[in-house]
Amino acid sequence: MADKDLIEKTRKTAELYFKGVQDERPFDLWKAFDKDLAKELSLFITGQMYAREKIPHPTRQLVTVACLTVLARPDELKLHIQAALNVGCTRDEILEIILQMAVYAGFPAALEAVKTAAAVFGETQ
Amino acid sequence: MADKDLIEKTRKTAELYFKGVQDERPFDLWKAFDKDLAKELSLFITGQMYAREKIPHPTRQLVTVACLTVLARPDELKLHIQAALNVGCTRDEILEIILQMAVYAGFPAALEAVKTAAAVFGETQ
Amino acid sequence: MADKDLIEKTRKTAELYFKGVQDERPFDLWKAFDKDLAKELSLFITGQMYAREKIPHPTRQLVTVACLTVLARPDELKLHIQAALNVGCTRDEILEIILQMAVYAGFPAALEAVKTAAAVFGETQ
Amino acid sequence: MADKDLIEKTRKTAELYFKGVQDERPFDLWKAFDKDLAKELSLFITGQMYAREKIPHPTRQLVTVACLTVLARPDELKLHIQAALNVGCTRDEILEIILQMAVYAGFPAALEAVKTAAAVFGETQ
Amino acid sequence: MADKDLIEKTRKTAELYFKGVQDERPFDLWKAFDKDLAKELSLFITGQMYAREKIPHPTRQLVTVACLTVLARPDELKLHIQAALNVGCTRDEILEIILQMAVYAGFPAALEAVKTAAAVFGETQ
Amino acid sequence: MADKDLIEKTRKTAELYFKGVQDERPFDLWKAFDKDLAKELSLFITGQMYAREKIPHPTRQLVTVACLTVLARPDELKLHIQAALNVGCTRDEILEIILQMAVYAGFPAALEAVKTAAAVFGETQ
Repeated sequence: MADKDLIEKTRKTAELYFKGVQDERPFDLWKAFDKDLAKELSLFITGQMYAREKIPHPTRQLVTVACLTVLARPDELKLHIQAALNVGCTRDEILEIILQMAVYAGFPAALEAVKTAAAVFGETQ
Repeated sequence: MADKDLIEKTRKTAELYFKGVQDERPFDLWKAFDKDLAKELSLFITGQMYAREKIPHPTRQLVTVACLTVLARPDELKLHIQAALNVGCTRDEILEIILQMAVYAGFPAALEAVKTAAAVFGETQ
Repeated sequence: MADKDLIEKTRKTAELYFKGVQDERPFDLWKAFDKDLAKELSLFITGQMYAREKIPHPTRQLVTVACLTVLARPDELKLHIQAALNVGCTRDEILEIILQMAVYAGFPAALEAVKTAAAVFGETQ
Repeated sequence: MADKDLIEKTRKTAELYFKGVQDERPFDLWKAFDKDLAKELSLFITGQMYAREKIPHPTRQLVTVACLTVLARPDELKLHIQAALNVGCTRDEILEIILQMAVYAGFPAALEAVKTAAAVFGETQ
Repeated sequence: MADKDLIEKTRKTAELYFKGVQDERPFDLWKAFDKDLAKELSLFITGQMYAREKIPHPTRQLVTVACLTVLARPDELKLHIQAALNVGCTRDEILEIILQMAVYAGFPAALEAVKTAAAVFGETQ
Repeated sequence: MADKDLIEKTRKTAELYFKGVQDERPFDLWKAFDKDLAKELSLFITGQMYAREKIPHPTRQLVTVACLTVLARPDELKLHIQAALNVGCTRDEILEIILQMAVYAGFPAALEAVKTAAAVFGETQ
């Protein structure tokens, strides 16, 4: 169902975001249970959603960091802080976005995210 | 406790974000109950948090739209979609950010936010 | 299954909390669908949980207002702000608790709750 | 990118779930803003996710009702209670699932969902 | 307050759901703090809510897995994936339900739940 | 921007709440990234919000425990259970508040909080 171009766009976008990430990439777990599903998910989310060119990758990634700060999902947050650095966000920008979340989602949400960011920055300096 | 510069910076930032907004501005309600508190909140959030110059206003506002999409707070979302337009975000950028949230917070969250955005765009064309 | 004492304790506690409340009381809706269930729920929550004497009713009710501020459930919040006034909480205490939530759950949560409180206070002055 | 079979499977699944639904169907709003995106979303969610044959449609729909009860998204909940009836769930099953949510997500979440269910049942008797 | 039948029904239902579960059962913790309360909770939730015969146990348990996937409560989720297997749900059904949650509550929620399911399946093969 | 009185009030309030707390205090992490910001946050939240004298400290702290029980933020919850003990709340009051949350936010939320409380009580006996 997926043509060659979509597969290539998916591969390139995944490489851009998750290059050098040591932890499990998001689709590895799905793959273990249902290989076809994992491929479809990857083509849809990475190849069709993430590869849309309406906003620059750093903006897209800062927004994702903000969202995961609110949602209390530290593993995914860690992965996407790494991805944010990969697409060119600075540490200061990432922290500023997390701080901004304190106003809208409360200080505990921001505090947990600052801990996660500190852990990622410590591993990637 | 607040010096003249902070008051001026707060006024200017509030003007930038909420110019032309017909609905109640966020601090009006607090003001009705505790005038001193409302002033302190305004000086802190608008004058100290929002006025930080670490990221551009449009990025800050897209991130806020994303966060409010996740949190199921339509009134605040409406206000900040208006503010996003005020600081120079385009409609396409706002919708793209909302769509991005579908991946992380589910499609119902995004769908509700698209409805809110459609309402704001209808009023401000 | 429920003895006379529990039924009486349930009735008295419900009267204390919801006296004069015009909106639907929480168990009315359950009653329409499953009368036995509604009775069991009422005996358990009102008669066994709410009637516990470990903390004073006003403290219990301020805590409930705080929780519903966080959870984005305005109808239940309205009901429990009415109940808070019924058990002797003051308006200032209720607003103070809502404000406290801004720090932990974000300003939009608190802002929505202030609106709900203003509506209740307007109806009950 | 989508072959004929997927388009046909999507159409049939959508017909099964949303037959006779008067409110906006989920993808109508996306369509107004980005027609291609709406088509991709529809093919992916309806044609690939919903049409998976691992669990019966009524189970899938009861689970969706449960999830939307927790998430405080009444418009989507209304739509999926209608869809649940369309795929053969009974009113009693839907209410039982909502009640079950009270234990895990609290009584206010269940209470709001009972109100929504009552509204749908009133319209579709 | 509880008659013999309710106690017996509670015991049987608990046995059905949590047979062989090594981790703490849900009421053990309450028991350590307030023995009477723990007994009341157990009789109410297990004996009255869970033992209702309106929907089959596997459906009830799939719905609970869905709800806990959304709520970000991994310990309770683990317990109820074990219970789902105990009442006869298959691994494929459990994973399918978790995947379904990605659409409504976002992929991070589903991803965390898949990790938890993988851990339970590893321990119980 | 902050006068001497505010600094002193902030210091005293922080001492009252967090005396003897071994874990990181909330502002330590912010301090590592932005010293000025951390000071502003501390003066605003501790010195202006927490030091408000509208409700007694134990009530304020029970409400905070309730809120963090709902929000699934165990590290912050731990810190504030310690603070609750510091300002004079009893263990029974803290547990009663957590139990109350089961009704409004579900039993898993309460169960996680009971575990956290048990851990704090074990360390501080």
